Amino acid sequence: MTGETSAPAGPIERRIRGDLPVVDAAAAAASISADATVLTSGFGSVGYPKAIPLALAEDDRDLELTLVHSGNVGEEIDVDLVESGAVARRFSYQFSSAARGATNRREIAFSDRNASAIGDEVQYGGLVDPDVAVVEAVAVGEDWFVPSTSLGQVPAFVEAADTLLVELNRAQPLELQALHDVYRPASPPNREPVPLSEPGERIGTNHCRFDPEKLLGVVETDIADSTYSFRDPTDDDLAIAANLGSFLSAEMERSPVFDDAIHLQFGVGSLGNALMGELKELDFGDRDVAYFGELIQDGLLDMLDAGRLRCASATSMALTEEGQTRLFENVERYAEDVVLRPADVANHPGLINQFGVVGVNSAIEFDIYGNVNSTHVGGTRMINGVGGSADFNRNSLVSVCALPSTLDGGDVSRVVPMTFHVDHTEHDIDVFVTEQGVADVRGLSPVERAERIIEHCAHPEFAPELRSYLDDVCEQDSHIPHDVRRAAEWHE
Amino acid sequence: MTGETSAPAGPIERRIRGDLPVVDAAAAAASISADATVLTSGFGSVGYPKAIPLALAEDDRDLELTLVHSGNVGEEIDVDLVESGAVARRFSYQFSSAARGATNRREIAFSDRNASAIGDEVQYGGLVDPDVAVVEAVAVGEDWFVPSTSLGQVPAFVEAADTLLVELNRAQPLELQALHDVYRPASPPNREPVPLSEPGERIGTNHCRFDPEKLLGVVETDIADSTYSFRDPTDDDLAIAANLGSFLSAEMERSPVFDDAIHLQFGVGSLGNALMGELKELDFGDRDVAYFGELIQDGLLDMLDAGRLRCASATSMALTEEGQTRLFENVERYAEDVVLRPADVANHPGLINQFGVVGVNSAIEFDIYGNVNSTHVGGTRMINGVGGSADFNRNSLVSVCALPSTLDGGDVSRVVPMTFHVDHTEHDIDVFVTEQGVADVRGLSPVERAERIIEHCAHPEFAPELRSYLDDVCEQDSHIPHDVRRAAEWHE
Repeated sequence: MTGETSAPAGPIERRIRGDLPVVDAAAAAASISADATVLTSGFGSVGYPKAIPLALAEDDRDLELTLVHSGNVGEEIDVDLVESGAVARRFSYQFSSAARGATNRREIAFSDRNASAIGDEVQYGGLVDPDVAVVEAVAVGEDWFVPSTSLGQVPAFVEAADTLLVELNRAQPLELQALHDVYRPASPPNREPVPLSEPGERIGTNHCRFDPEKLLGVVETDIADSTYSFRDPTDDDLAIAANLGSFLSAEMERSPVFDDAIHLQFGVGSLGNALMGELKELDFGDRDVAYFGELIQDGLLDMLDAGRLRCASATSMALTEEGQTRLFENVERYAEDVVLRPADVANHPGLINQFGVVGVNSAIEFDIYGNVNSTHVGGTRMINGVGGSADFNRNSLVSVCALPSTLDGGDVSRVVPMTFHVDHTEHDIDVFVTEQGVADVRGLSPVERAERIIEHCAHPEFAPELRSYLDDVCEQDSHIPHDVRRAAEWHE
Repeated sequence: MTGETSAPAGPIERRIRGDLPVVDAAAAAASISADATVLTSGFGSVGYPKAIPLALAEDDRDLELTLVHSGNVGEEIDVDLVESGAVARRFSYQFSSAARGATNRREIAFSDRNASAIGDEVQYGGLVDPDVAVVEAVAVGEDWFVPSTSLGQVPAFVEAADTLLVELNRAQPLELQALHDVYRPASPPNREPVPLSEPGERIGTNHCRFDPEKLLGVVETDIADSTYSFRDPTDDDLAIAANLGSFLSAEMERSPVFDDAIHLQFGVGSLGNALMGELKELDFGDRDVAYFGELIQDGLLDMLDAGRLRCASATSMALTEEGQTRLFENVERYAEDVVLRPADVANHPGLINQFGVVGVNSAIEFDIYGNVNSTHVGGTRMINGVGGSADFNRNSLVSVCALPSTLDGGDVSRVVPMTFHVDHTEHDIDVFVTEQGVADVRGLSPVERAERIIEHCAHPEFAPELRSYLDDVCEQDSHIPHDVRRAAEWHE
């Protein structure tokens, strides 16, 4: 898009500017065809449209929508709209049992994509033929809007879709604009590198622009985002956090790369939250500590408040109610150090590589050779989705997989002989951490990795059986010895 | 490194400049400690050191070397040195049956890394503790040398190692310098994007610099690189090439992204060579066609000669004897359009993404859900290594996996129910091509992918059995239904 824009160059002070087609949610929903491909804002279960999906869930038509978003969205979509049966096809992350059930029963054709890639895939890669983008905003004008609590793939989706519906959500503070750095890489194949020199830099604008001819309508709402609640850290969480802390301390001591600065990323969840707690206690010396990740969690706000973290870059916020209140009441202060970017920038493979990120992510299970399954229980039943974990696991300078060694109260080992679904290959992960210890597998052959993982990460209840598996298969002359039937028995 | 350098700013006209410690290969080998970690030049089986590895193979000491290179090297290392028993640990690619055997018997601790990453992993990631870099050069001075037929991870290795040995190879033309664009990204975590705006741009120098205090010696040699020989294309190769050509034509027609330009990458080998032949015949209209890949093959020289290709960027050359002669006799003419880069630039995840590459790579097998095994037969026995295939499969805008549907004269299907080693996950590949047809799986759920792959890619001899597998497992309520025991039987 070129030419004049009505978007102010500085801070935006009014919710609505210009003569806009304000409609109610039912009318907006009715403007979406029954088999439309709908691209929505939303990432980390915040910043997604709410009123229009609820209206679609109530719609009398026999809807067969294709629904695209790059991170998870909230209950209005993941429960209400899904349970209404309106969603025939979906990309690319889910969290509710309703959505999970529909995916596993294959009532919804679900395709799991990497969070970094879905913008380009939608706009350039032939993944779908997009009809309408439905985005949540805190302010809107004739050819611009200000996104709310997440950026996700909003700029790509707005460029890719034929039409646009904007939900203006008055429950979201207008001041969120101060966090945004809206920058969309140009179209391949001839485009420049993303001109980001450090995680906290700003290279874009506080608003997203659109072709005014695309705008079908603006729907006003005041439905609040859902917030996260994390369980209190378990003993295992605390032990994992302590082991991770020891590893990070030793790594900073060992590697001159981290002498002056370290860039971190943490996966979200109760464990991630506990890990963030440990981080607060960690001695980073006088290093410049920055976060280059996907989601902002409460622990990062704590670290910013304590002056332990210089800046945080992400595409969304996974905050508790307390954290959200703290952020909303102090947006402009946090905006000095917090930058929200589109997911194609926040999770960009080249930038994760460039910034030498130390990435810490969880999973369902990993095998003795270092393959990681983060999406499918037993290799077959989908839980949530791969999200951005592969972006960080593949491209981080140091990739850490951190999780408890067991689940179901200790009955099931998360360290297995063989994972039957692989999201992150044996080439991706450098270090495994459980409550049992740390297995740094860098530079090791597969069988050496297995020995170290069994010794340092497996639960003592399961280690002898894993050891016996390894001993027996090692009678084969093969680089990665396996007995698939026996590995299958393990899962039964 | 900063300060004065003796390297001329323009073309380098003499093989040796300055007072250098010229030694024989045996003396150079003797300067390497018995348990040293040795980083070598070499990629695509060219540009690797030859005399010093041969001397190491003859060495009387009980050597236990760790050997690191980012692509494949030639027989002097992969056969002679390996068969001498001198290699205890090795990264990250092999091609000889000697090396393969030692890896599968686990006499060599082999670790398979992505070609793009091994420079950073060696220099910053704690993979190894490097002692000496051994590089082949066509010219050398007091603090610089000109690499020969490949760049690989040479700049990173020279920076990372404590010491340096240079093999000055007079069999390699001095004019190769005209191809080189030596650029090493700075150290993470605070570094700038690689400033490359298009595949043919030059951002570096024709030589690689080093700290003169590191130089242990210069060894003069005249041992030629090995060259490639490709079998004549089989009927299957030609059918795959034709199917790929149809897909590419349709994709250029469909996607506005390719209206003005298309950037291609092809994996190496007899099939790759046949695909390149098809490419020569393909109608690209008036599009700007560029190659942003890992290896230059004969077919690319043909396309350059025919004016069908504007430029080619790679880290090495996989040429036949005829191709090598053609290149060597016309280096300066080819250098107008051919750029050799270090592998950390040629295979850079961010650049592959930036340039919207259409990447075409082969594999051992793929499964009905789109997981790809490119390294381990039966999931256990290593063939060569992952090389740069994951760099391109993961980061290309359109990732194509192309291979014959069967092997061993049709007795074994390369389309299987489940791969028991995964190098490229179900999130990575967009399109599968065999001699049977094309399965474009973009936007499909796993079971839809399976249906399309069985219908369009599997050999008719095996399709009914794959179909029966899919039908039976689809009785499960799961997103990616499997019966691991039955999938294991398939491989037996």
